[in-house]
Amino acid sequence: MTMRSPLAPDKFPELPAIEGLDLAVAASGLRYKNRNDLLLMKLCATATVAGVFTRSDTAAAPVIWSRNVVASGRAGAILTNAGNANAFTGKHGRDAVCQTSSALACALGISADQILLASTGVIGEPLETSELSTYFPQLVANQGASWEQAACAILTTDTFPKGAHVTCEIGGVPVNICGIAKGSGMIAPNMATMLGYIATDATLPADLLQTLLTTETDQSFNAITVDSDTSTNDTVFLIATGRANTPMIRSAEDPKLAGFRHALRQLMVDLATQIVRDGEGASKFITITISGADSDRQARHIGLAVANSPLVKTAIAGEDANWGRIVMAVGKSGFGINHEMIGIKIGGFPVATNGVRVADYDENPIADHLQTASIDIAVSVGVGTGVATVYSCDLTHSYISINANYRS
Amino acid sequence: MTMRSPLAPDKFPELPAIEGLDLAVAASGLRYKNRNDLLLMKLCATATVAGVFTRSDTAAAPVIWSRNVVASGRAGAILTNAGNANAFTGKHGRDAVCQTSSALACALGISADQILLASTGVIGEPLETSELSTYFPQLVANQGASWEQAACAILTTDTFPKGAHVTCEIGGVPVNICGIAKGSGMIAPNMATMLGYIATDATLPADLLQTLLTTETDQSFNAITVDSDTSTNDTVFLIATGRANTPMIRSAEDPKLAGFRHALRQLMVDLATQIVRDGEGASKFITITISGADSDRQARHIGLAVANSPLVKTAIAGEDANWGRIVMAVGKSGFGINHEMIGIKIGGFPVATNGVRVADYDENPIADHLQTASIDIAVSVGVGTGVATVYSCDLTHSYISINANYRS
Repeated sequence: MTMRSPLAPDKFPELPAIEGLDLAVAASGLRYKNRNDLLLMKLCATATVAGVFTRSDTAAAPVIWSRNVVASGRAGAILTNAGNANAFTGKHGRDAVCQTSSALACALGISADQILLASTGVIGEPLETSELSTYFPQLVANQGASWEQAACAILTTDTFPKGAHVTCEIGGVPVNICGIAKGSGMIAPNMATMLGYIATDATLPADLLQTLLTTETDQSFNAITVDSDTSTNDTVFLIATGRANTPMIRSAEDPKLAGFRHALRQLMVDLATQIVRDGEGASKFITITISGADSDRQARHIGLAVANSPLVKTAIAGEDANWGRIVMAVGKSGFGINHEMIGIKIGGFPVATNGVRVADYDENPIADHLQTASIDIAVSVGVGTGVATVYSCDLTHSYISINANYRS
Repeated sequence: MTMRSPLAPDKFPELPAIEGLDLAVAASGLRYKNRNDLLLMKLCATATVAGVFTRSDTAAAPVIWSRNVVASGRAGAILTNAGNANAFTGKHGRDAVCQTSSALACALGISADQILLASTGVIGEPLETSELSTYFPQLVANQGASWEQAACAILTTDTFPKGAHVTCEIGGVPVNICGIAKGSGMIAPNMATMLGYIATDATLPADLLQTLLTTETDQSFNAITVDSDTSTNDTVFLIATGRANTPMIRSAEDPKLAGFRHALRQLMVDLATQIVRDGEGASKFITITISGADSDRQARHIGLAVANSPLVKTAIAGEDANWGRIVMAVGKSGFGINHEMIGIKIGGFPVATNGVRVADYDENPIADHLQTASIDIAVSVGVGTGVATVYSCDLTHSYISINANYRS
């Protein structure tokens, strides 16, 4: 693990156990030495599950497997291995997920189609199941690992473990939501992010859980980017154990669910932005808000164009108020925006309005803002009511250093 | 000008004068000191012109002006200034192009709607026409500048001037085609590139000239990328002076035009790849060939996804055979490719076939290839007959250094 990101939180937050969910970790040594790289999450019989996954055409074998399992809305366990993505591994990869789930199901005394799998690491290298499965009895026997231990076991190039906790009520019954995630590079999720696991003790049917997860992913994990590269293994699971004995809710529009939805979004944005804060080489956290677009979808597309622009990201790394690059990035999407309606603020200070630099433009407060660690860019494109906020980080020498020899 | 790119050609090629086209340069001192930054190209009365331009929504004022002028197929002169893009400058920018073209037309004794304009440099800063126009009498009086002087006058962050020359025949009559270009960063052209000027002494009607330019741009300037950022000022002009007295051709399909088309494409690919060779911070030139796509268009899209991937580009900078990142980049386009049909070669050496690493994979020859300055990546996606070749460069520490303080 390289030096902790300067944007990392001070410490891992306090996360309570979620009743009905048990965590266990182990060190397989498959890729990393002297650290845990296997995480087993055991779910109680009442648990429902939902998942969102990468839209990549080269989705990994465990993604394809888990997409099928999650469709049933039920699972008994989730196994994650870090270090090998089991992506682009052909029949060997398909066999590996079958053998892994069978061996783990056997050890747990459940059926293989109740096993969810997630992998992260190098693409294209065969995953040796036989070596992995020797650790299953130990994983199954272990229990009571902390959320922080779990968050550490799934890391690859991350520099800190990522966790979040919120509370809310459903029908007057207190509910916990806990989540962990990993991700640092190859971050431009599409319907999901790298790996995320969110668990609640609320009682929620699987179809509703899936609706909530899909909706909130758009505002959180799908609104972040580190380097515009979409992973083959992006996966987020949402688990509801039902142990809080909350009243059964059937519809996402049920007013009793409002507090839970708000809390879930808060937690997912928290986890997603922690990934950006651990973006490879990041020294600045960037929040980009686009307003006045045709639609929220268009606003997010424009926001991501700014967030992914190497020229915008390097200017911010250099604390250079070169705002013309924001203009370029807004324009390159080619949506037919009228550039004479564009307004730009940086750090809340007006830069441009109605397609031209403001008359009394003063670079000094903007230069001061760019020296801070959290940069705010707001662009109004002035054609409609679509809004979106996306999160990114700057592009620094460290990104090059990290990625010019990741495998070495 | 920073240190000359290690990928630069040994010297500027020999380019003959094109009869009917005169070149003049001058130093305005508007942004750069002690170097020429103005280029005037004077066209004879028989000349026809065509142009392709950026598709950016924030296209610069001179782009919008020149799009209208070029529609007539005729022009008397092309003025280029380097250092100020006159982009995102609102009414001031529109007034600037009107005043510039009027003042230059007056000095040349032609009408303002015969003046083509191109600008390159910083976005968002007002262009002061009054200062610029004081140099027009001098520019008009000057003549006989060389192609190399012209190519130098249009540079910004470029580290070398870019030129190319080819010859061919039309109906047995010898024809010259010369071209110059500039570009180094903000390179992901869409229907055009940064700035390119191509001139021939052939006789070609303007509508045919436009067809040829548009078609060949897709194979050349639209097939390159340095940093995925599309400029507000991309412009390529094609001029035919008619002074070679070639037989008049009316159709792009005329067999007599085959040699010219071939030569034009060769010259445009040469100029376009020189821009990539001068890509900011580039240490490796990358050729990516995609075959087996649904269409040539889809092949180019996939090729550009690989070419724009920061993770692929940094792996190549690090001479790291981390080919899984190529898999990721091919997958992220989300075209519905069957990943079990994907094959990959690097430097001609097989890496993967049918969606899995080749059985006898040997990294040694690939590692050797990656230590050279010209990297070849070939990907077959195995679904159709679409092919495309795109050109890119690696992503290095120098890119960060150059762009973290370009304006300073």
